[in-house]
Amino acid sequence: MIQKYQYGNPIETEAVVTEISLSHGTLPFFQTTNENRTFSYGLSEEDIVYGLGEQVRGINKRGWKYQSFNFDNPNHEEDTQSLYGAHNFLLISGKELFGVFFDYGGMVEFDVGFTDHSVLQVTLESADCMIYMITGETEREIVKQFRSIIGQSYIAPKWAFGYGQSRWGYRTEEDVRAIADKHAEYGIPLDSIYLDIDYMERYKDFTVDPTRFSDLKQLQSDMLARGIHLVPIIDAGVRIEEGYDVYEEGVQNDYFCKDAEGKDFVGAVWPGKVHFPDFMKSETRNWFGEKYQILLDMGIDGFWNDMNEPAIFYTEKHLDDVMQRINDLSQQNMGVNEFFEFKGLVEGISNRREDYDSFYHEIDGEKVVHSKVHNLYGYQMTRAASEGFDRLVPDKRILMFSRASYIGAHRFGGIWQGDNKSWWSHLLMNLQMLPSLNMAGFLFNGADTCGFGSQTTEDLVMRWLQLSIFTPLMRNHSALGTREQELYQFANVADTKKMIEIRYGLIPYIYSEYMKAVLNGDMMFQPLGFVFREDDMARNVEDQLLLGDELMITPIYQQNAQGRYVYLPEEMMLVRMRGLEDLETQILPKGHHYVPAKCNELIFFIRNGKKIPLVQSADNTTSLDTNRLCFLGWNDATYALYEDDGISKSCNLEQNLRTV
Amino acid sequence: MIQKYQYGNPIETEAVVTEISLSHGTLPFFQTTNENRTFSYGLSEEDIVYGLGEQVRGINKRGWKYQSFNFDNPNHEEDTQSLYGAHNFLLISGKELFGVFFDYGGMVEFDVGFTDHSVLQVTLESADCMIYMITGETEREIVKQFRSIIGQSYIAPKWAFGYGQSRWGYRTEEDVRAIADKHAEYGIPLDSIYLDIDYMERYKDFTVDPTRFSDLKQLQSDMLARGIHLVPIIDAGVRIEEGYDVYEEGVQNDYFCKDAEGKDFVGAVWPGKVHFPDFMKSETRNWFGEKYQILLDMGIDGFWNDMNEPAIFYTEKHLDDVMQRINDLSQQNMGVNEFFEFKGLVEGISNRREDYDSFYHEIDGEKVVHSKVHNLYGYQMTRAASEGFDRLVPDKRILMFSRASYIGAHRFGGIWQGDNKSWWSHLLMNLQMLPSLNMAGFLFNGADTCGFGSQTTEDLVMRWLQLSIFTPLMRNHSALGTREQELYQFANVADTKKMIEIRYGLIPYIYSEYMKAVLNGDMMFQPLGFVFREDDMARNVEDQLLLGDELMITPIYQQNAQGRYVYLPEEMMLVRMRGLEDLETQILPKGHHYVPAKCNELIFFIRNGKKIPLVQSADNTTSLDTNRLCFLGWNDATYALYEDDGISKSCNLEQNLRTV
Repeated sequence: MIQKYQYGNPIETEAVVTEISLSHGTLPFFQTTNENRTFSYGLSEEDIVYGLGEQVRGINKRGWKYQSFNFDNPNHEEDTQSLYGAHNFLLISGKELFGVFFDYGGMVEFDVGFTDHSVLQVTLESADCMIYMITGETEREIVKQFRSIIGQSYIAPKWAFGYGQSRWGYRTEEDVRAIADKHAEYGIPLDSIYLDIDYMERYKDFTVDPTRFSDLKQLQSDMLARGIHLVPIIDAGVRIEEGYDVYEEGVQNDYFCKDAEGKDFVGAVWPGKVHFPDFMKSETRNWFGEKYQILLDMGIDGFWNDMNEPAIFYTEKHLDDVMQRINDLSQQNMGVNEFFEFKGLVEGISNRREDYDSFYHEIDGEKVVHSKVHNLYGYQMTRAASEGFDRLVPDKRILMFSRASYIGAHRFGGIWQGDNKSWWSHLLMNLQMLPSLNMAGFLFNGADTCGFGSQTTEDLVMRWLQLSIFTPLMRNHSALGTREQELYQFANVADTKKMIEIRYGLIPYIYSEYMKAVLNGDMMFQPLGFVFREDDMARNVEDQLLLGDELMITPIYQQNAQGRYVYLPEEMMLVRMRGLEDLETQILPKGHHYVPAKCNELIFFIRNGKKIPLVQSADNTTSLDTNRLCFLGWNDATYALYEDDGISKSCNLEQNLRTV
Repeated sequence: MIQKYQYGNPIETEAVVTEISLSHGTLPFFQTTNENRTFSYGLSEEDIVYGLGEQVRGINKRGWKYQSFNFDNPNHEEDTQSLYGAHNFLLISGKELFGVFFDYGGMVEFDVGFTDHSVLQVTLESADCMIYMITGETEREIVKQFRSIIGQSYIAPKWAFGYGQSRWGYRTEEDVRAIADKHAEYGIPLDSIYLDIDYMERYKDFTVDPTRFSDLKQLQSDMLARGIHLVPIIDAGVRIEEGYDVYEEGVQNDYFCKDAEGKDFVGAVWPGKVHFPDFMKSETRNWFGEKYQILLDMGIDGFWNDMNEPAIFYTEKHLDDVMQRINDLSQQNMGVNEFFEFKGLVEGISNRREDYDSFYHEIDGEKVVHSKVHNLYGYQMTRAASEGFDRLVPDKRILMFSRASYIGAHRFGGIWQGDNKSWWSHLLMNLQMLPSLNMAGFLFNGADTCGFGSQTTEDLVMRWLQLSIFTPLMRNHSALGTREQELYQFANVADTKKMIEIRYGLIPYIYSEYMKAVLNGDMMFQPLGFVFREDDMARNVEDQLLLGDELMITPIYQQNAQGRYVYLPEEMMLVRMRGLEDLETQILPKGHHYVPAKCNELIFFIRNGKKIPLVQSADNTTSLDTNRLCFLGWNDATYALYEDDGISKSCNLEQNLRTV
């Protein structure tokens, strides 16, 4: 059952697409205080709090405080409170069982047993909000109900399930060709190469630097002939530059956000000073969405939208203030107080709340300060792109994923899990995000495999591949200045290549599970407790996930580990794979197990009585021959395989399912 | 067997106190290249690399690169390379077994299978070094050999094994009295209250702010009457202030480090501009050591030496350069390159290598650039203090521990594990540091319990106490601006108080094991593989430690965990304690176990056939009645209990051991 409660005069987010009549009377479960801004729930000892989508810490969010206020935050640490997404859905399971969605585009604070271990407290910045309360028999059913009201998740093209190679640092056409050649040389399957900001001319959206990429259309054509798609980045900010059409059109047609005086607001990002398109206006969305045409015309069929929290390096006015103050301070004999102020001023110069309070959107003719709809910005940018694609290439799926998001954005694109680091702890964190992202509708997602920031190591590469093998997006991405981490940069390419081949062997299964989850409004990755509901041990497992109805994934996320502990809530089949054809299986009983697994060994489990399809690997997804499936698991099992052409938009579950 | 090799003309560190004749010929095990600066060893698959003392990552250091260059680093992250100590001792165990100590006061880089998983590579900044190669039958024996040449570890007074309360933020006498009162009110045992920088007048060493601490002597006297010792901080930098005696004497007598022109070098730290005492000079050490007299005369009997890497917030000259450049940059339309340079200049303003290259020590009449002996600075400061105490109060142990250290400093004081955070991952990291610190001789140590930086939570407090219960230093310490974390700040004081009572109950055992480790040159905390040498599983355990010959500690370090996996390399007795008299025991067989343990339950194991003494808790260590011991473990076992008066310096093992 879904009940909808209104407080004040909420700004429409379009997160929910189903008409639901308003409930009156008291909000169930919660105590409402603080002039309808604070909602409190008493947690009992055994309560688990699921949800919050893209956030740090465990599957069970209990014991920390989180903030929904989209944030370009390269530090995903234990004490981080905000990342790039605002996914205000919680699922409480224990003494009582219910889901709740705080549909609110501004800042929300979630104190999940931080201040007091037995209190969940949600505080909105203003008392203008829709709240959806969802009750049901099981966690999974509650999620399905929630997903049914927020609309079907985005469907990525099948090629996007291939392995992708990316790095902030590929600067030229030659760089790209070398990546493709190297993968071919080592026989590593590859479906995509990502273009980060350097392909653009002076970081201007919808431009291509003519000296470094003299003919992007030709390059894409050459790559496509090898089964490789180029995926360029698009940023939120539009560079202020006379004669630059996107800038000129935006100014002329009032497409940009305004400052308090009604002038186009100026922030600074990669290109220096920019204006931010007012994606809350449909005119802006229509205009911006059709700008993608320039790249679509070059044969490009995939994009990633970035910096759309929006990230703001600095604003001119605040920079002036900072400079003035630090010049004053630096004249003094700075001791602790002055010096900490000095450093703090510069460290805090970006993504400031005050800057988000200083520009405005036009919503239904009204001027609305950005911070009230901050969390919707990246969502509406992704929507602009997606709706543009619908008009420009109505019959073809375009790969689209975004950094910033809000629930609702899941209908228009996927997301990646942001700028993580090459840390072992992030491997686990990225696993733990998967089910909470699924609850919020984000099915097409994945982490920057091997880590974006910091320096990776060969063993971390191997282990991270062993997680990413299972996620829809499997992209190796790294930052400028970090160790190069294309697989052939390491001594033992043979072993990493085998992991990529296993990925390709699993694509029929992964794609099938993804499509079923999309079309059924279901989860692809579930916490163990969603299925083994009466098993207290299963409910508290934080480092294993169920994938579909067939698998339990159990990656190793600790350096130098020679294996790991696994809890089996039922008898399952251990699969240990060194390559697609170099594997062993063993049926293990319900209970606790220590499972050895050397660095080159992927381990996972097939659930009792189930099987999964496998296919021969190939150079890319297009070359996969799904007519020749083999199976892993219980011989007498059947599997419902979803298959389609991977590119057209009409995806019918019944037509495309077959029992194998 | 210990062999000593000399390269070039090393600067004497006095880390090694035993005369060892020089070996000639080739250095065993390693390949020497790069003009005797780089030493490489081929790692086989099963090799474990122990050591490096205070560093991040696991007990097995393999798979990362580390740096010995003492660093005031508040970010102990997976990709951190330097912390506050330089402990250049490695122990390689696998295909071959040996220890090696690179006795070198400058920068050393350790690539422990980072670049290539099968290569250990150690690179010194210059080819002037003593290298000690140690071979033996077991890991423990090699460590004992090493410890025998670096001299006996510092012995702390017994009261320092009590619980200590600390916070950067206790500003006044009233604050201190309130802490004592609150602990008394809740009945939480307490032996010490730490004074952080605010007790000083303008952060000047050996001063007391007369407005905030009008009579420190009286305060200490009042506190001692309650069994509580005040432990003030002393920083390395001496504030430049006309009329301040320490400054004036230092200038007059040439006690400070010099800049290139021979003038007293100016850095800036807490008090603003300071000079750094040249602790490499015995005259400076003698002078500085006797300055502690001022506080000793007030009855103070414990100190912590801080900021002695030395930390440098900034230098005047570099600050000018930074300001000039950022003023230039801020005039431009800063895009990514300019903005990152802008932020980087300010972020990198502290603790710069260039600053360490710009001042000088006098060593045996020679001018030596600081960076060549950087890692010895904190060590020589601690030595100054310790040798001062020996002269000033020859018959009494004074508590002394330091942030910065080098091997050798272990003879003069303990260390704390630096400015960690209230992160669950730091709980594990601090456990993993214990054996490597013991290898380097640092027996009196412990982490900032409950975490120094960031915000703690009640469950983290409970779990962290369950580790710190076993470490010699058990100090709850937190930073200005973080959540207050004295135990009575949380809802459930009853449970945390019980953990402190368990600590006091264990003090006879912990003190005894500490003293035996000191007097035998042995380890107090060992990795499992040191004892269960043939057990591959035990060798790879990263989250359990052996304590003495009796215990295996197995703290829980994951939020919301309801228990943990434990590997028993032999039959052991599980102890589950909610309080000193609220406990259960159970004998568990060798093998893997999942052991449930609620948040208020401490779990650890007693080794087969062993027992440990327990005593009733008391308000403080002085009130402990060790005449009434009870025991936990195997009834027919005996235990060798070390007892002494806890304060005098003559500690004879034979005289003070008794079988119980």
